[in-house]
Amino acid sequence: MEEQLKGFFKVQTPEQLYKKIERFKPLSSEKVSIEDSLHRVFSEDIISPTNLPEFARSTVDGFALKAKDTYGASEKNPAILRLVGEIPMGQVSDIEVKGEEAVKVATGGMVPKGADAVEMVEYTEWVDSHTLHLFKTLSPLENVIQVGEDVKAGEMVLRKGHWVRPPDIGLMAGIGKTDVHVYLRPRVGIISSGDEIVPIETTPQPGEVRDINRSTIVSMVKETGCVPFFLGITKDRFNDLKEKIESGLKESDMVIITGGSSVGTLDLTRDVLQSFPGTEILAHGVSVRPGKPTLLAEVDGKPFLGLPGHPVSAMVVFHLFGKPILRILSGQSGEEIQYGKKLKAKASRNIPSVPGREDYVRVKLEEREGGFWAHPIFGKSGAISNLVNADGLMKIAMNDEGLEEGEEAEVILL
Amino acid sequence: MEEQLKGFFKVQTPEQLYKKIERFKPLSSEKVSIEDSLHRVFSEDIISPTNLPEFARSTVDGFALKAKDTYGASEKNPAILRLVGEIPMGQVSDIEVKGEEAVKVATGGMVPKGADAVEMVEYTEWVDSHTLHLFKTLSPLENVIQVGEDVKAGEMVLRKGHWVRPPDIGLMAGIGKTDVHVYLRPRVGIISSGDEIVPIETTPQPGEVRDINRSTIVSMVKETGCVPFFLGITKDRFNDLKEKIESGLKESDMVIITGGSSVGTLDLTRDVLQSFPGTEILAHGVSVRPGKPTLLAEVDGKPFLGLPGHPVSAMVVFHLFGKPILRILSGQSGEEIQYGKKLKAKASRNIPSVPGREDYVRVKLEEREGGFWAHPIFGKSGAISNLVNADGLMKIAMNDEGLEEGEEAEVILL
Repeated sequence: MEEQLKGFFKVQTPEQLYKKIERFKPLSSEKVSIEDSLHRVFSEDIISPTNLPEFARSTVDGFALKAKDTYGASEKNPAILRLVGEIPMGQVSDIEVKGEEAVKVATGGMVPKGADAVEMVEYTEWVDSHTLHLFKTLSPLENVIQVGEDVKAGEMVLRKGHWVRPPDIGLMAGIGKTDVHVYLRPRVGIISSGDEIVPIETTPQPGEVRDINRSTIVSMVKETGCVPFFLGITKDRFNDLKEKIESGLKESDMVIITGGSSVGTLDLTRDVLQSFPGTEILAHGVSVRPGKPTLLAEVDGKPFLGLPGHPVSAMVVFHLFGKPILRILSGQSGEEIQYGKKLKAKASRNIPSVPGREDYVRVKLEEREGGFWAHPIFGKSGAISNLVNADGLMKIAMNDEGLEEGEEAEVILL
Repeated sequence: MEEQLKGFFKVQTPEQLYKKIERFKPLSSEKVSIEDSLHRVFSEDIISPTNLPEFARSTVDGFALKAKDTYGASEKNPAILRLVGEIPMGQVSDIEVKGEEAVKVATGGMVPKGADAVEMVEYTEWVDSHTLHLFKTLSPLENVIQVGEDVKAGEMVLRKGHWVRPPDIGLMAGIGKTDVHVYLRPRVGIISSGDEIVPIETTPQPGEVRDINRSTIVSMVKETGCVPFFLGITKDRFNDLKEKIESGLKESDMVIITGGSSVGTLDLTRDVLQSFPGTEILAHGVSVRPGKPTLLAEVDGKPFLGLPGHPVSAMVVFHLFGKPILRILSGQSGEEIQYGKKLKAKASRNIPSVPGREDYVRVKLEEREGGFWAHPIFGKSGAISNLVNADGLMKIAMNDEGLEEGEEAEVILL
């Protein structure tokens, strides 16, 4: 109540937040070798300068010939052709195949001039060292990849905004593209705050706890392909916080703070942000559980994300909002579906939920009866041991009162 | 036929190969900081030296007290307690709560001696600056995480063989484990062979093609977390091949060769391997499509994998056999299911197949009607452009004659 009076902040839905992050833009780009482009994002369309293949290639081991010379050939009535040469792998040949002639070729080898099909060696028999029986009728272009059949010169083969996978690198190799422009990896400054937080190498005094969030959030940022760096632990005091956030904004493309356990940290953080000129608070409070006290702002043109202090809540909110923001900064096109980051599973028992917020329930997955089953892991939200036992987070939609046993829902994989 | 007479090699099933790779063993281990352990594999069980939490903590903002003092409390009939202090975050306090007393605590803060529950601030009202009304009856331990409730000292929290994820690193941070033993990353030597293969920066002469497999296999090895290094392109000649394989075995934990387009390369490779003492050829030929000419051997105690020359076939075989071998060398426990690497999808049309081999069909995925649909991408097997358009490989089992429209099968994500 006090909160709303102070800053007119209302708890927002995840959908409202997703709309708001659309304001952020990809970073600039750099040129890297194609092998270094793995898991980066193209900042240019890839146009092939060449045909693939660049010469007609055989897809089988056999004999290149004119298809019409095999017309009518069968097991009982073979065609008879004269062998006029062989094309060794990797070599060009100016042999030209004429009527009633054949040239030996290997898989991937060049189909010589004049030939328009290749009879597989399995369907041939030697009559003598220069004469062949062929038992199978071929159609023109059978067992031949024509020039440009795979890729045509001038064709756009991959698009700006595409996240680079191994086959994409293979295709660039094939067309002779050795370097490529990709978006810069976002640098993410991470701050841990809370009067009770101590570095992990310290033995905590009673009342103190080790800084778990530093480790989880740094690791999660690494998994996105971005570059995390840790700015340190700050006490819940205006000037300490301000100093850390300032240095974070200077060195990074996005700043993330985890808010200690105390309720007040993100309120204080919001006040600090508002002391910077041009800050826009985009959200303070979001209708998800865990994760309600999320803070989202644009500061100095950069995204600022405040995560709850509970390790589990911090991870959930980073999954839900941190990752999409980093995808935008990385230049990733929104059109590509993130297969493999989520799956559908059935609830192994009833899972209650309160309507009016999205619930993310930690689940352990099991594969059985040809599908996935999700076993909810209940426990107090501060318990990190529950999260290591979880395979993912099962989503219960905003207006659901929970899932019934056997009901299917989406699981975000951790 | 000639093949079988020469070396008695029979085409084997994928299951037979999976049995054979069980002979390989994890590498030795090294100590790294927990942040560097991300996506590595534990070579030790992780035992917590400490309780988590190390002191009783409140899970809410409120007032610590003896639960029995709230018995019978309700909206109409509040309990009345005297406030005797406050415990600031991160600090220890020797306050002891006695009967009819309460101490103010924040979420995550220490629950003082004598108290066994915390009343949420929402259910309280000040009578005067030292006196509170409490409207809710509490049971003992309500809103309190007890010492060791999350993790107990001496408890095994994570196991040897586990692939490290962000929450695992968070848990280690929480228990004060700053370094951890992990298995060494396997070094993988990669050779491209084939008389027609030229480096990608070269303009191919007619009959020559650029080395696509180097780029795809190097990238795929990187994705597994292993360390690829490229040994170069070799011609299909015994001594060239032998020299490259020797240097590969010296510098790496596994050697992979891609076999050019010509049928003979892997036969020649097998002969080269047999010239090393103690080589055991485990398989030459496997009943999958694409990928039949796969070669698997143990040489000098190390795995050697020969992949077909077609880029698409090479990727499929690396997925099927290269990755499992690298998982073993990396020390990854076989028990963990690889969620997110595959999903179930329905065939969008009939997909034919020949029984007697496993078929892997390139598919484009589409999410619709609450499930995934797989559209097969047909095309000549040499075409790399088809693979960049694919999201995954749909498996048609050994004894199936294909999939019918709407039939569900597993898709390995690329």
